Amino acid sequence: MSKNKDMEKGLIIVYYGNGKGKTTASLGAALRGIGYDFRICMIQFIKGEWKYGEIYSSNLLKPNFELIVAGKGFVGILDDDHNINEHILASKNALGLAREKINSLNYDTVILDEINYALKLKLIDEDEVLQILKAKPYQVNVIMTGNYITEEILEIADLVTEMREIKHPYKNKIKAKKGIDF
Amino acid sequence: MSKNKDMEKGLIIVYYGNGKGKTTASLGAALRGIGYDFRICMIQFIKGEWKYGEIYSSNLLKPNFELIVAGKGFVGILDDDHNINEHILASKNALGLAREKINSLNYDTVILDEINYALKLKLIDEDEVLQILKAKPYQVNVIMTGNYITEEILEIADLVTEMREIKHPYKNKIKAKKGIDF
Repeated sequence: MSKNKDMEKGLIIVYYGNGKGKTTASLGAALRGIGYDFRICMIQFIKGEWKYGEIYSSNLLKPNFELIVAGKGFVGILDDDHNINEHILASKNALGLAREKINSLNYDTVILDEINYALKLKLIDEDEVLQILKAKPYQVNVIMTGNYITEEILEIADLVTEMREIKHPYKNKIKAKKGIDF
Repeated sequence: MSKNKDMEKGLIIVYYGNGKGKTTASLGAALRGIGYDFRICMIQFIKGEWKYGEIYSSNLLKPNFELIVAGKGFVGILDDDHNINEHILASKNALGLAREKINSLNYDTVILDEINYALKLKLIDEDEVLQILKAKPYQVNVIMTGNYITEEILEIADLVTEMREIKHPYKNKIKAKKGIDF
């Protein structure tokens, strides 16, 4: 059972944009929630370079944190080992899990990591995502991350922050760092 | 001793802007780092409404996470119980602690939470902050949060993300939520 006994309205929160910090902020939100004994589920729609950091860290948050790596890597960017149909199948599977976890009432917060990117690539159907959000149990928080945002997601969301890249260390020839980036 | 045995270059990371997610992202970065057995120190320059969330959550990250609440509340915004001299004294004390923690080599990452806001309010001297950043041990990461950024901080930083408020639930008459906002 969810620990949100006050039955406050759950928020739909979106962190989008081209800057670093979106998944990191959702992890921070998970940590904050667990400080209040919330139960959190994080579903990764796109499995990125940073996967090990999340997996190692998530062990610290057990048993109140469940991480599901459902995606297959960045389509056409970081991953060439899967064809588009495999990506579509993986993302649809992730969305099915998202619906199940959100509606289960076993979690106070469900994080849909990189779902916005999966929407941008049209790996999943926006109408299906909107339907899940509109039908979500009143008290459940949903956090969505990824570069992109659609007009309809912006409309339905309660809290939206754009994370804009102003300066990026890769451009200064500093490589990705363990414990910071992944 | 710090656990960054590879002696990779530490990054200066700045999360600024008027959107939600800055402190949350720094907490997420702490969580990620601790997944790699990093040692983290977080110094709060401004003690805000969200303090309880961080304090409760930080207990989950012990013994590798140290939280120091050095500030006195948002000057002239959330707090009228302290005069400006008390705020200046508290912020100067926080900056002294920041220098000490960064140079101690006991931490892989030092988070200076809301230091940008303290700079904006001129509670601390920018030249002193720049001097600390320029003289920091090579391998130490420093994460700075707060609404503001100066040209000089932007210049010296390795990674800068602006977190812009696009939509805010308070404006929709949803009050601050336990486990999400504080």
